[in-house]
Formats: sequence, structure tokens, C-alpha cells
Amino acid sequence: MKLLHSITELREARARIAPGTSVGFVPTMGYLHEGHLSLVAASKAACELTFVSIYVNPSQFGPNEDLASYPRDLERDLELLSTYGVDYVFFPSTEEIYPEGYKTWVEVSGISQRLCGASRPGHFRGVATIVLKLVNLVQPHSMFMGSKDFQQVLVLKTMLRDLNLQVNLVSCPIIREADGLAMSSRNSYLDSQQHQRALCLSSAIKAVQAAFRAGQRSVPALLEIAGETIGDRGRIDYLELVDPERLEPVTTVDDMSRLIMAVYIDKVRLIDNAALGEQL
Amino acid sequence: MKLLHSITELREARARIAPGTSVGFVPTMGYLHEGHLSLVAASKAACELTFVSIYVNPSQFGPNEDLASYPRDLERDLELLSTYGVDYVFFPSTEEIYPEGYKTWVEVSGISQRLCGASRPGHFRGVATIVLKLVNLVQPHSMFMGSKDFQQVLVLKTMLRDLNLQVNLVSCPIIREADGLAMSSRNSYLDSQQHQRALCLSSAIKAVQAAFRAGQRSVPALLEIAGETIGDRGRIDYLELVDPERLEPVTTVDDMSRLIMAVYIDKVRLIDNAALGEQL
Repeated sequence: MKLLHSITELREARARIAPGTSVGFVPTMGYLHEGHLSLVAASKAACELTFVSIYVNPSQFGPNEDLASYPRDLERDLELLSTYGVDYVFFPSTEEIYPEGYKTWVEVSGISQRLCGASRPGHFRGVATIVLKLVNLVQPHSMFMGSKDFQQVLVLKTMLRDLNLQVNLVSCPIIREADGLAMSSRNSYLDSQQHQRALCLSSAIKAVQAAFRAGQRSVPALLEIAGETIGDRGRIDYLELVDPERLEPVTTVDDMSRLIMAVYIDKVRLIDNAALGEQL
Repeated sequence: MKLLHSITELREARARIAPGTSVGFVPTMGYLHEGHLSLVAASKAACELTFVSIYVNPSQFGPNEDLASYPRDLERDLELLSTYGVDYVFFPSTEEIYPEGYKTWVEVSGISQRLCGASRPGHFRGVATIVLKLVNLVQPHSMFMGSKDFQQVLVLKTMLRDLNLQVNLVSCPIIREADGLAMSSRNSYLDSQQHQRALCLSSAIKAVQAAFRAGQRSVPALLEIAGETIGDRGRIDYLELVDPERLEPVTTVDDMSRLIMAVYIDKVRLIDNAALGEQL
């Protein structure tokens, strides 16, 4: 596994790859869990070479968010990626990614403003910008991302399409703990009592999916079931039933309608989502 | 010369070019003049293959600007480009460049807000976005642009650097009519009396350069000379002495300080610029 500390090292490595070799890319903020590793496995299955980036991107954090405390363990991450047979790991410095005088930002209008975008102004601008930069550097054929960040995947698919980039964004299933909690680096913030309460997100999904299977088609009724399942275990940031293409609230539901939510467990903000027709 | 009417045709043509072949690109809005053709010549001199795009980009025009009346003559343009030995001409439709649901915009902060950016809100957002899209499609090694649009060149250099794109932007000299008027497709709007008055832009540059050569170093005095030279022949939109890197107003001048201006001749807005140390 080749470690690429700088843009120069990355470019040199990329230039040495023969044209036509299929390149997969998994962008991460590190502190890897099984969700990330499933993306690595998907890339390795589909592509001849796999790049992983580890970069905690400051521009996608708001001023009062957890940039400083975001969990980091580069040594452990590199060990894991080496075990998984990753070919290249890129972990640049912020001095190189956003040098003095940095000025360029990418906005995906509309879809970036709702849900997580409403709660975290500027978040998707930061995400779109860093992913565009990384894609320009790595020049992958396919990019693998987790669908826990369902809105992020849609924002980035829109960006890639609009900017005429021929990168295939592969959205992979959410990986969950045995108890149902969607894997997230931020789960490390939770103590065991908070972890128990955090099960309210996946429980709400399960309850709503069960009601849907049992024939419930009323949006207010389904949302009430979700809200009651969460109860006082968490504080709802948003909780909606949306269409999977534009993430706009729906008034009638089908299998593909998506329950999507952000819930605070004390100060820890967690997200989760699923289609009504799935079964967790 | 290969005509590429669509993104699909462009991508097929680009994919057939052997890796390692140097590709030059000249993005234009058509209605070609000798300025454009000098860019084509520069590309042909530097690169093995030359692409030219012809696309009047609606997103860089304001709602009250001249999008509808912007001069167009595709047939003549293609004849000229063929004569000059261009390899590929790309002239896409707006339906393909900005399809329904288009959402992604690139902003270069700071430098896009002054001068032409102040007079034409959103202009450089449109320019940056279309050039990024075209660069992603054409994948050139070098791109050739005229320095009449001096601010545009700086905006795009900043964008390419910030987004980690390895495209060499080559800024080429302004090409002028024998009487000094900087070539522009918009000169076709001028009748002969207006054309005479439009010489006030290059005359102002010449007068300021002469005063600078004669030892004048006072910014207010140099700007007064420019303003008096323009007189009532045109209405000044902006007229500044700026540094050539950030386009901020200077208080002390040297050879590289740049006189930069936009002047209305009746309803026709013209721009021009030059370094004090040059001689028109």
C-alpha cells in the first residue's frame, strides 16, 4: 500500500497508472468503521486499483460544529486499509488543500438547502468542493460512498452530472451495528447509555416500515409513528418522508419513499434513512 | 476539421485521441475576429491538436444584457477555423449544457466581485461554470484566452489552481484594430461614428502610458489623464489603476500596474486594459 502525503506524491502515483486501468476511489474523513470498509470492498471488487483519501475537511463543518473534536486515528486507519488491500492512501494537509488565497467554491442549488443543508448552512458547499478537488486529483472511474449520507450522495451525483464529469458514483448500503445503529465515526462520541438511546433512529425506521407493510399509507400517521418511537430518547432536528430523487416531502407514499432524519442524542447529531419498502 | 455537435460526439472524439497527445483548447462565444484567431494560432504552435468551442453561454449574461442580440455567424466561424487548421470544433446546444434540473455553480470569491463583477453580478459565476464544464469535457493540457478579458483570465487561473486542475491557462496579448480599438465581437454593435468615439479607451491607455513614461507617478493624476482623454466620448463604468495579481486599486504605481476600464459608448459596453510599462 502506497502512502501519499502530498498532492505532488498523489499526482506522480496517478500519472504512473497505465491509461485504461480502472480506478476506484473512496473519500473518507478517517476513523474508519465497517461502513467505510464495505466501500473499500466494493471498490476492490469493481476496479483494478483502489484509492482511499483520509481528510477531515474543515470547510464542511460549521463554526459551532465538531471539527476540533472529530475523531482521528490515522495509524489504525492505515493498518485497516492495508489489511483490506487498498493500493493508495492519500492524506493531504489543509495547507495544501486550502492554501492561502483559496477562493473557489462549488454550490449545488436547491437540493443542498434542505434537510442537513438547512441545519448545517454551507455544509454541502464544503462537501461538493472537497469532493470535486479530490476527484480532479485522483481521476477515478468510480467513486464509492455510503447511503447513510443519502442527501450527500444526491448532491454529489448532481454535481458530477452538471459538471460533465464521467465519474460513476456508486451508492452503497448503510452498514449497521448488530443492534441497528447505523455506523458512523461520530458514534464514538456516545457513551453506552447514549448508544442505547441512539437506537431510536433505526427503531423509528423499523416501526414505520412495519406500519407501511401493514398497509398504513398516511404520511402524517407514518411520521407520527416515527416521532413517537423516537420519543424523549432524542431531539429531532428533522424527520421527513421524501421522494428519493429530489428529497422533497411527499404527500403520497410508495415503496421508494424515504424516511430521512437527523436526531440529536444530547449534543451528538446522528442521521439515518431508509426506503419504506426496505426492511431493516 | 471535425464538427462536434453534441457532448456525446465530443466525448467520442476525445476518447479516440492517444494518451500523451498534447491538446490545446480555445473557448469562444463565436463571431470570431483576429483576437480569437491569434489564440488558435497560439494553440496550434504549442499543441498537437486544437479544439475550439463556440457557445454563447447564457449564464454569464445578466437579465438586461445583450444575450439575445449577441452577434452570431456559425457558418463564417467554421470557415475561418477550417482555414486556420483547427482539428475539432465543439458547438453544443443549451439544452445539453444546461439541461432541465441543472443546479451546479462555481464561484471564485473576492476577485469575481470587483470591476466587471460589480457591474455584471453573476457574470464570473457563469464564466467559471461554463469553462469548468468545457474543460471537463475537452480535457485540454493548455487553454488559450485573450487578455482583453484580464479579470476573466485571473478568475479562471484561480479556479483551475483551487480545483487542482492541471490545465495551463495561456493568456495571449490583446489584438487591436489599426486605429487602436481592442478587437471584440461587440464592436459589431458600433456604427462608424460610435467606432470613432470608442477609440477613447485605447487613447486613454496611450495617454496614461505616455505620462507614466514621462515620470508621472501620481495615481490620481494618471486617472485624471485617462478620464479627460475619455471625456464625453464615452460613459465610464469603471476606470482604475490596479495591481495585476489581485486587481485591487493601487496607491503607488510601477511598470506592472494596470489601467483597466469599462466604458459605455451609448449602449455598447467595451473593456480594455494595459500595463503602464507597455506601449500601445
